[in-house]
Amino acid sequence: MADLILHDVGLRDGLQIERSVVPTATKVAWAAQLITSGIDMIQLGSFVHREKVPQMADTDEVFAVFRGAPVPPVLTGLVLNEKGLERALACGVSYVCMGVSASETHSTKNTGMTIAEAQQRIVATALAAKAAGASVQVSVQSAFGCGFEGEVPEARVLDIVRRFVDAGLHVVSLADTAGHATPDRVERLFTAVRAIDPAVECACHFHDTYGLGLANCAAAMRVGVKYYEAAFAGIGGCPFTKVSAGNVCTDDLLHMWHRMGLRTDIAIAPILAVSQGAADVLGRPLPGHVYKTGPLS
Amino acid sequence: MADLILHDVGLRDGLQIERSVVPTATKVAWAAQLITSGIDMIQLGSFVHREKVPQMADTDEVFAVFRGAPVPPVLTGLVLNEKGLERALACGVSYVCMGVSASETHSTKNTGMTIAEAQQRIVATALAAKAAGASVQVSVQSAFGCGFEGEVPEARVLDIVRRFVDAGLHVVSLADTAGHATPDRVERLFTAVRAIDPAVECACHFHDTYGLGLANCAAAMRVGVKYYEAAFAGIGGCPFTKVSAGNVCTDDLLHMWHRMGLRTDIAIAPILAVSQGAADVLGRPLPGHVYKTGPLS
Repeated sequence: MADLILHDVGLRDGLQIERSVVPTATKVAWAAQLITSGIDMIQLGSFVHREKVPQMADTDEVFAVFRGAPVPPVLTGLVLNEKGLERALACGVSYVCMGVSASETHSTKNTGMTIAEAQQRIVATALAAKAAGASVQVSVQSAFGCGFEGEVPEARVLDIVRRFVDAGLHVVSLADTAGHATPDRVERLFTAVRAIDPAVECACHFHDTYGLGLANCAAAMRVGVKYYEAAFAGIGGCPFTKVSAGNVCTDDLLHMWHRMGLRTDIAIAPILAVSQGAADVLGRPLPGHVYKTGPLS
Repeated sequence: MADLILHDVGLRDGLQIERSVVPTATKVAWAAQLITSGIDMIQLGSFVHREKVPQMADTDEVFAVFRGAPVPPVLTGLVLNEKGLERALACGVSYVCMGVSASETHSTKNTGMTIAEAQQRIVATALAAKAAGASVQVSVQSAFGCGFEGEVPEARVLDIVRRFVDAGLHVVSLADTAGHATPDRVERLFTAVRAIDPAVECACHFHDTYGLGLANCAAAMRVGVKYYEAAFAGIGGCPFTKVSAGNVCTDDLLHMWHRMGLRTDIAIAPILAVSQGAADVLGRPLPGHVYKTGPLS
């Protein structure tokens, strides 16, 4: 397996906060284009309450289209609880992602549970997923700061990671939900995570709120982070606020890698086509750079 | 002097390619606001042919307003040749910037001279500036690639730097005119420059064409680069093309530094005010992030 793994989460973390609901056929078309790029992993959606998150209501249908498709890419789904896991397993999802927030406020607002309650539940759900034969990635959300609380103590993040590792969960993502991370913190925190257990495989998930997304990815690369979550065109910014909080842009990240001679086996053109398609469908310029400029050869 | 020096070049490299000419009074107001931030250096304009670059036609007037102002900040001006230097010295400019392109095509289009001709002329002009008592920064433009030629050999960049150093010019900037740099190249090339002579003080000047501006600044910080050129609001993108090629955003870079505990003596609020003012005057959203989101405390 490659040293750097690219995981597009645009269909989930990008679309879930869009004002409009993107039609299932469009999602399927975008996923199909992403697949042709040779990207490693694609998150097709999340198994959440259909009425609470109508943008994700068709996740089961989208998975059904690709059921039994040859791999790679690995098609992943986000689950929040046991019910979501049941649906994911019924859809044949082989790789599930789930997480716990390191911010009490964020945890309560997002899940109605304290960090301790959420962690207990997520560990149980993750172990159930493994028992059912799925691969599992567990994440710590708000790992670099919280939009509500501000600073999040690194010790608290590491406590959550330790609990995951103790439970035998070894693919651990640190998610910068609010975009507060800086390169020095990224290096420090991932180094600390890897010191807990060298067998841990690290994933990162940055938002570009303050323009630091790619700088943080470059920092993560220095300290051996393997999995990079990003969204085509850098979607994910909330259209209702002034704060543009899109994900790291998959295409821009891959373009950086290509310029560094890395992962040139993944084709950028199909990803750029999805980004342009998303800008057309969503009806506004999206944050990504390279889909506008074209890539350097 | 601080380890990291912030040099805003928005009034020059930002405004010189704007369709509209910003009134002198507005430039003066923006410069005055930047001064109140405690920023280290501000480039007020360039001493170029007034008819060829009407956006810079009032550079002498802008300098006249601030003549004799207490320092810091250092007020800098760009010169292209002997005539420009004469004007700069007549304006009392104490710190002049000048450069040579490492791309033959870029050099010819920009100056009508080959690299060799341009270098001879710039070295002579730089030595004249020093003899007149000014401080001098010499730069290599297109140091990381060229929009016309693509790859620029690192050996050619280092040859130009060596010539500068041999002439006794020790403040050397590498300018990524086209935005082609990546963090690995930044570290490699600046390390090679410093190996030529440890007395060299390095400056960097990145454009954010492909979203890599802050990642490249973070890389430069790792290898001891001291001077950081950036433009308020990340202006500098050409409004006539699809390619958004703005400078690194001064406010976003300072925000990253503040989050890293660095240069907290420079106030960000006045810079954000200039960025918002520029967006209002130029009549469009500008590339910077933090002037839109507000800074993290």
